[in-house]
Amino acid sequence: MVFVLNKSIIKNPALAEKGRLKIEWARSFMPVMELIRTKQLCKTKLKGVRIASILHLEAKTAVFLQTLADSGTEIFATSCNPETTQDDVAAALAEHPQITVYAWRGESESDYWKNIRRVLLSKPDIIIDDGADGIIYAHEKLSGVISQLIGATEETTTGITRIKALSEHGMLRIPVIGVNEGKMKFLFDNRYGTGESSVFGLLNATNLTIAGKNAVVVGFGWVGKGIAKRLRGMGARVIICEVDPIKAVEAYMEGYRIMRLIDAVKVADFVITATGVNKVVRKEHILEAKNRCIFANSGHFNVEIDLEDLNEVTTSKKKTRYFGLPYNDFLVEEYRLINGKVVYLLGKGRLVNLVCGQGHATEIMDLSFSLQFLSILYLIDHKDDLEPKLYSVPGDIDDMVARLKLESLGIQIDNLSAEQRAYIKRFK
Amino acid sequence: MVFVLNKSIIKNPALAEKGRLKIEWARSFMPVMELIRTKQLCKTKLKGVRIASILHLEAKTAVFLQTLADSGTEIFATSCNPETTQDDVAAALAEHPQITVYAWRGESESDYWKNIRRVLLSKPDIIIDDGADGIIYAHEKLSGVISQLIGATEETTTGITRIKALSEHGMLRIPVIGVNEGKMKFLFDNRYGTGESSVFGLLNATNLTIAGKNAVVVGFGWVGKGIAKRLRGMGARVIICEVDPIKAVEAYMEGYRIMRLIDAVKVADFVITATGVNKVVRKEHILEAKNRCIFANSGHFNVEIDLEDLNEVTTSKKKTRYFGLPYNDFLVEEYRLINGKVVYLLGKGRLVNLVCGQGHATEIMDLSFSLQFLSILYLIDHKDDLEPKLYSVPGDIDDMVARLKLESLGIQIDNLSAEQRAYIKRFK
Amino acid sequence: MVFVLNKSIIKNPALAEKGRLKIEWARSFMPVMELIRTKQLCKTKLKGVRIASILHLEAKTAVFLQTLADSGTEIFATSCNPETTQDDVAAALAEHPQITVYAWRGESESDYWKNIRRVLLSKPDIIIDDGADGIIYAHEKLSGVISQLIGATEETTTGITRIKALSEHGMLRIPVIGVNEGKMKFLFDNRYGTGESSVFGLLNATNLTIAGKNAVVVGFGWVGKGIAKRLRGMGARVIICEVDPIKAVEAYMEGYRIMRLIDAVKVADFVITATGVNKVVRKEHILEAKNRCIFANSGHFNVEIDLEDLNEVTTSKKKTRYFGLPYNDFLVEEYRLINGKVVYLLGKGRLVNLVCGQGHATEIMDLSFSLQFLSILYLIDHKDDLEPKLYSVPGDIDDMVARLKLESLGIQIDNLSAEQRAYIKRFK
Amino acid sequence: MVFVLNKSIIKNPALAEKGRLKIEWARSFMPVMELIRTKQLCKTKLKGVRIASILHLEAKTAVFLQTLADSGTEIFATSCNPETTQDDVAAALAEHPQITVYAWRGESESDYWKNIRRVLLSKPDIIIDDGADGIIYAHEKLSGVISQLIGATEETTTGITRIKALSEHGMLRIPVIGVNEGKMKFLFDNRYGTGESSVFGLLNATNLTIAGKNAVVVGFGWVGKGIAKRLRGMGARVIICEVDPIKAVEAYMEGYRIMRLIDAVKVADFVITATGVNKVVRKEHILEAKNRCIFANSGHFNVEIDLEDLNEVTTSKKKTRYFGLPYNDFLVEEYRLINGKVVYLLGKGRLVNLVCGQGHATEIMDLSFSLQFLSILYLIDHKDDLEPKLYSVPGDIDDMVARLKLESLGIQIDNLSAEQRAYIKRFK
Repeated sequence: MVFVLNKSIIKNPALAEKGRLKIEWARSFMPVMELIRTKQLCKTKLKGVRIASILHLEAKTAVFLQTLADSGTEIFATSCNPETTQDDVAAALAEHPQITVYAWRGESESDYWKNIRRVLLSKPDIIIDDGADGIIYAHEKLSGVISQLIGATEETTTGITRIKALSEHGMLRIPVIGVNEGKMKFLFDNRYGTGESSVFGLLNATNLTIAGKNAVVVGFGWVGKGIAKRLRGMGARVIICEVDPIKAVEAYMEGYRIMRLIDAVKVADFVITATGVNKVVRKEHILEAKNRCIFANSGHFNVEIDLEDLNEVTTSKKKTRYFGLPYNDFLVEEYRLINGKVVYLLGKGRLVNLVCGQGHATEIMDLSFSLQFLSILYLIDHKDDLEPKLYSVPGDIDDMVARLKLESLGIQIDNLSAEQRAYIKRFK
Repeated sequence: MVFVLNKSIIKNPALAEKGRLKIEWARSFMPVMELIRTKQLCKTKLKGVRIASILHLEAKTAVFLQTLADSGTEIFATSCNPETTQDDVAAALAEHPQITVYAWRGESESDYWKNIRRVLLSKPDIIIDDGADGIIYAHEKLSGVISQLIGATEETTTGITRIKALSEHGMLRIPVIGVNEGKMKFLFDNRYGTGESSVFGLLNATNLTIAGKNAVVVGFGWVGKGIAKRLRGMGARVIICEVDPIKAVEAYMEGYRIMRLIDAVKVADFVITATGVNKVVRKEHILEAKNRCIFANSGHFNVEIDLEDLNEVTTSKKKTRYFGLPYNDFLVEEYRLINGKVVYLLGKGRLVNLVCGQGHATEIMDLSFSLQFLSILYLIDHKDDLEPKLYSVPGDIDDMVARLKLESLGIQIDNLSAEQRAYIKRFK
Repeated sequence: MVFVLNKSIIKNPALAEKGRLKIEWARSFMPVMELIRTKQLCKTKLKGVRIASILHLEAKTAVFLQTLADSGTEIFATSCNPETTQDDVAAALAEHPQITVYAWRGESESDYWKNIRRVLLSKPDIIIDDGADGIIYAHEKLSGVISQLIGATEETTTGITRIKALSEHGMLRIPVIGVNEGKMKFLFDNRYGTGESSVFGLLNATNLTIAGKNAVVVGFGWVGKGIAKRLRGMGARVIICEVDPIKAVEAYMEGYRIMRLIDAVKVADFVITATGVNKVVRKEHILEAKNRCIFANSGHFNVEIDLEDLNEVTTSKKKTRYFGLPYNDFLVEEYRLINGKVVYLLGKGRLVNLVCGQGHATEIMDLSFSLQFLSILYLIDHKDDLEPKLYSVPGDIDDMVARLKLESLGIQIDNLSAEQRAYIKRFK
Repeated sequence: MVFVLNKSIIKNPALAEKGRLKIEWARSFMPVMELIRTKQLCKTKLKGVRIASILHLEAKTAVFLQTLADSGTEIFATSCNPETTQDDVAAALAEHPQITVYAWRGESESDYWKNIRRVLLSKPDIIIDDGADGIIYAHEKLSGVISQLIGATEETTTGITRIKALSEHGMLRIPVIGVNEGKMKFLFDNRYGTGESSVFGLLNATNLTIAGKNAVVVGFGWVGKGIAKRLRGMGARVIICEVDPIKAVEAYMEGYRIMRLIDAVKVADFVITATGVNKVVRKEHILEAKNRCIFANSGHFNVEIDLEDLNEVTTSKKKTRYFGLPYNDFLVEEYRLINGKVVYLLGKGRLVNLVCGQGHATEIMDLSFSLQFLSILYLIDHKDDLEPKLYSVPGDIDDMVARLKLESLGIQIDNLSAEQRAYIKRFK
């Protein structure tokens, strides 16, 4: 049951007050976004631009969308995941005259796609996507929408992988800026953001200690590196599973143990996937797992832990741990297996940092959304020059976000002199 | 408004189902307590023993109290803090035929003391205390209760300090085992338990990143050491404030910065107190603090941040951040100061790991409560030999808990041979 | 005074026995090189190939060169730095019938260039370079040598920078494989290798503790990252100086302090440069430095600390600390400054890990030299296809070295299934 | 062959210049000792006091002994280990008119005891001991010396264990201050000092990387804790072996793996003992060790690795790695075992930080020797009140050393107010 406010469709407008407080808090800790706003980097150009936003709908996203809207754009927003909308934030966001929201937590699969369709049918100039569901859907089903787009931005590794595939199939029809390929994105959001928030999700869901535990991190990309670092920082013995031999040696040199997953699960207290690949945890792993092993996923889609396989080897399951924040309806599920062992699944195998936690820290999203903001400006400024392909974030946008961050911290850095610049270019 | 179930006084019996799940979860991760139960270390002796329990009333405590009750004791339980009772756990606990509960979250100061009085008037043989409010109260106001006690156990540094003071004033009338002086307590609960759970509380209350922040830890005892270690593990730049020069040099060698608090607050993003001392953060510190500085306390009493001083330099305040778990009514408060700056206070200055979090991790409390359990057995076994003074946990109890923990982990360790034992005793 | 053995010119043939032991030790801990040898990946192709090697002449290099020579090549070897040849190793190496050595420790600037000229005039097919002195020299002075080369490999960031400059000036005439751009090189050698060995050099030169010290690392590239990580691992408070704002934010998130060098020197106990840039530490920094500050360099050339500037602000200097290993003649120099302070310079400002230490760890060089080995094979195999430009290490060479390393460690890793490979390529 | 200078017996007086430079360097980094000297805490009282010093004879010890001598005492010095004297330092020390030295590196067992006898026969008022060889010898063989002593100080855990044993046998005849029981000793010297210098010794002896290695630390006392911390800081995967279950759980919570030694050696790249116990590494461990495992000891005596057992299972051995600093004659020995494997022994199983390195860092010894200095003053001041027993370092001496250290660093700390002091003493 959802409520319609103005044109928006949300869970409950009465939650708006709480949502406003959350957004106000987030804004206080997003200084780069604030500098972008106050430096007037953009106001006139954005006037009247229509934007379809398909991002996890919570407080930091709201600050980003409000800043965009305050700059003159029209925003149509839904979420990129049926379970990650914060209804209070959605309610507060819907109060903005230039923002229309179609999203609620726990929306059905069918409603999820309906909401994406709604934002795509808002005649957008730009799509902001997270996982590429919107961009792919539009390419497949809404040719008319595609043909009127200036372009899109994509937030995640997963989304970029899909857009590359689309491009390799010769089907990509719009320019897309892969925000995730910005250094100020993947070096921070993927690594520090996911690392910290996944540890939080784990603690929040379990009230167990991390210290002393055997924690298995599957995947040693930027996300896996971040999770491993923070788990170790909390005292875990970390084991890494990888398919890339170079990353495996890197993990070895970092002092982690490297094992095949089938060996690692036997000693695992926790298993967290961060691969971007499907069917990583399969029935053979589940059956070999140590009794009371806890499984969680930090990858974008809930395909890394194979839920079909899990159910296939399960005799009974129950919701075993309700937890509160930020929603009261989520849980740890206990699976009693055909071999008599018990394993636990956190947040239904969806991204543990969002479903069992509060998502990335505010300051991290400040960097990512600032890159988004400047990438949108770039799309508009260069709309006549861009081709239908995947673009990296331009280096000077990356640099500008970094410099604004340092400015917000009051940190000064050194500069190369002309002589030093020449020295770097020399060969003698 | 509270509800009376059997003899218990609790918030809401309907919450019992949720409470039962929480307790079941906790029990699954308290293997030492389970080994104590299954090894039948105690059953007969405890039959009919009456115990007044004044401990934070949440799931791990419930496992402890249920294990005691299952061993034949009669339990009368309240909380040692008006804000830390989990009402669902209290409801579940009250279902046990041998357990009576007088506690609810948010009880008034007056109700807090009434509840302590209720458990003390239950004709206890033993008091289990946390902070020594019950022990002190009984000494001052309930002489008859004191005279019938076998003894008491005390969980915290703060409580032991108070009992030492009582003893030095010649007023201590019962044997008290200072459980906090057990190595399996302070090396684990104070250090790893508080460290981890305080970091969780901070993240939970704020959704801010710890990485890169200037985090000031005031006090470098076991608790402060644990907090500092985990904050650093999450990427903070940690600054330590101390009054003990030896601990200050120790912190310096650990690579922390050491400053006076008045200097540290100027660069602080977070300030966490862990001193056991009152009026640590005073108005001069608050006024000098960096704008948007966040203050929290991990010490037992809410006296470390001087709330009178804080209010004195405040022009307006508001509740700025509701958070969920485990209760929906708590918050971050924003204080707008007379000098125009804003500072934030977490959880009203009460222990951030409990009020803004879920308390210590389950496995940590397993160790502490196992020490409690065995200390209670010790009191009963030696009741004729013990004098009215503060006792440390006997070394073999400490050892037994450690050995049970290792057994539960399947870890084997080496043993000294007779020749090696002789070598250690040699002087040639 | 040097000694001629066969055609070689070295310090002292009598040192060969010690050198042989060093080389034997190194060989025991270079398992990837050993697997390359035993897997016969190369033997026939290398027969008769002539190689000019300009690498730091110590034990690990010797294992590499012996393996090459055992595969049938003719080696002509000198060092890429006048101070880094180990005379005992040079003596042992000169005993190999297919290896000619022209190098000794402490050779003059003039002899340094004469020795480079000697190896270049040996009619090489391939140059192995470290810093690009040989490659550049041949381009400038020995056109005939260049015209007969198959190509070259270059070991360092510094060398690659120079070759890029050469290429941008349109002057590069041979294919060069930038071994440093291999992941199995820069992720390991630059980061872990230099980090660890620079810390060793610092400890070796000073016998001071790192714990608690303010250590300033100038430059946060792979080398700087490695040094910072290890200094922190030894207990230092690390301060990073950078010119790149993105790297500065990264260092900030890692929990380091970020400062301009002029501010950092005021609190510095140690300053280590790792920038690849000249004149990084200048007189203004030296004069502002804390009394007794210790300066060292980990960059390739001794230009990062401006020695002219240092001498200009010095009133007197003395050799203050002889140390032993691996040579007795080196030292810490004490500079008494015009403002009355004292500062110290380690190893004359040359790379502290080699001049004050033993160079990179054996296992690290095993990876780097294995990449070199396979890159040389690649040059030969593809000599007809390669153009005069800078090439990265081919990805499958990187992978092979990683897989051989894992094999040598007995570590197994997971593999992607066909279904998973397809999943990664999908867009739906 | 040794040389007699004045009354001293040393290796070579010509080494004095190098020794003077070493001592000057050390003095520059021993600010607490310098503050003690300049604050004139002691001068008159020490005039004419005769001191027998049995300490590792290297530069930091020399600064301590010179400071004592400059205060008016007469010093008679030898070493507490036949392999740890630095002959250049001994030569420089012997130049002081009030210091007589009997020590050289590589002295025979017989000479070692003769030298101890020489210093004991110098009619000392005070013995400064390290390991208690001198104190025990005097009790057993030199009753007349004992009867004239004011008392002694003892530097190490090992020595204190022996003196406790002597005391328990009722044989201790003099007051001994156990300097090792001072917090400013064991928290720093044992932990940070030995940790750092053992890692240095390991690197110096091997030129291997620590990163990624399985390093087994046997013993998790202060020394073992320090070694484990620094090995991890350098990237090792650390495994702890313990006999104390509490320490084992502590190590587990720190994220180390805990194993019996017999299991640990199977995966060990390095094994370092730090137990204070004999026959820790026995033939069964050696035979089970991974091929090319490296054994080292950081405990006081060379009994932790059972050399008889090692030789018993060895078919051939050779000196395999000479290294330089600080002496050219030391080595790694390669043992080829009866089962065909090879293992290595560093520094003959003597303390690896001294025999393969340069001993503790200068600033660490500054703390330890400052405690020694003030403990000697305490012995003299209280000579009429002290009984023949083991004393801890008085708390105010510990505090004074800490405060002087902070003063030397320019660090200010907070102080408790009178109100706070009262609060701590309260029970209400």
